[in-house]
Amino acid sequence: MPPLPTHLHLTLPDWVAPQVAAWPQAPDDPARMRLVLGLAREHVERDCGGPFAAAVFAEGRAVAVGVNRVLPEKNSLLHAEILAIMLAERHYASHDLGIPDLPRLELVCSCEPCAMCLGAILWSGLGRVVSGALREDAEQAGFDEGPVFPASHRYLEARGVELVHGVLREEAREVLALYRRRGGCLY
Amino acid sequence: MPPLPTHLHLTLPDWVAPQVAAWPQAPDDPARMRLVLGLAREHVERDCGGPFAAAVFAEGRAVAVGVNRVLPEKNSLLHAEILAIMLAERHYASHDLGIPDLPRLELVCSCEPCAMCLGAILWSGLGRVVSGALREDAEQAGFDEGPVFPASHRYLEARGVELVHGVLREEAREVLALYRRRGGCLY
Repeated sequence: MPPLPTHLHLTLPDWVAPQVAAWPQAPDDPARMRLVLGLAREHVERDCGGPFAAAVFAEGRAVAVGVNRVLPEKNSLLHAEILAIMLAERHYASHDLGIPDLPRLELVCSCEPCAMCLGAILWSGLGRVVSGALREDAEQAGFDEGPVFPASHRYLEARGVELVHGVLREEAREVLALYRRRGGCLY
Repeated sequence: MPPLPTHLHLTLPDWVAPQVAAWPQAPDDPARMRLVLGLAREHVERDCGGPFAAAVFAEGRAVAVGVNRVLPEKNSLLHAEILAIMLAERHYASHDLGIPDLPRLELVCSCEPCAMCLGAILWSGLGRVVSGALREDAEQAGFDEGPVFPASHRYLEARGVELVHGVLREEAREVLALYRRRGGCLY
């Protein structure tokens, strides 16, 4: 038997941080979504992975971002939201992004979170999630969202998580369509 | 602003790999669960994190394991199942653990997977999941499982994932109780 794997080293593509460092302050949901969709689009155009991006914002500034790294990292769990949340927790050195010492943090995702990411959002303590494309848009593009039901959203809302859906939906659908047009792999 | 975080380095505690390397071949579900519960118990006794462990087995041999690293890594997503799946995908260099080139892989977890981990299991391609403590045992010990409904399990089963619950349940509950007796942190 080969030795048991004990380490994981996960990274964003090199081009992401310089691009995000140049983002302006984004005062509202559409402004933040536009930045995240730009990141998702560039990710697709560079053939870096699935057509999804996400960012954690504090007062309109991105403190952590993620892009879908499933195929390049050979890791089925590396959805954009998972990376953005893990990196935000690293940024603040806290497993709870909802503690009062921190600014009010929001997750902005190019598409509605799947079942895994919805659970991850709950555990992260994030209080607000803004998404672009809807579940049916993802499914139409060939991506499964997993066991997410209306009761799943209500479960998070009952625990104080505000969920906002469909911000810049058309632009968000267009990123998914771009991926399909370029022959992007479905997994 | 501090620079955007771009890297994550995740590790198992040093003592885990040597211990797992000494595991015997485990021919059936109870034998595998006993090994995973031993890992969870030692994790608690060493004050390494939450009272949960998981392992991916190929023909009775562990190829990857995980323990709950939420508190020590300050990362709310590092459930035992997440680490075990990510490390198994690293081991096989594949984002899909269900491809025919691989042996039949099973995930054995000390407790029923939460909403996030259930989604992760679906994306991993794993075909069989065996768990010990039930949702109500975790809740009784103070841990939330998130939005998991009977329909969530049916969703996975309809996609070919076999879910086996409550194997060595009493021993699995005892690990959760041990954590509580030692004053383990709930998060």
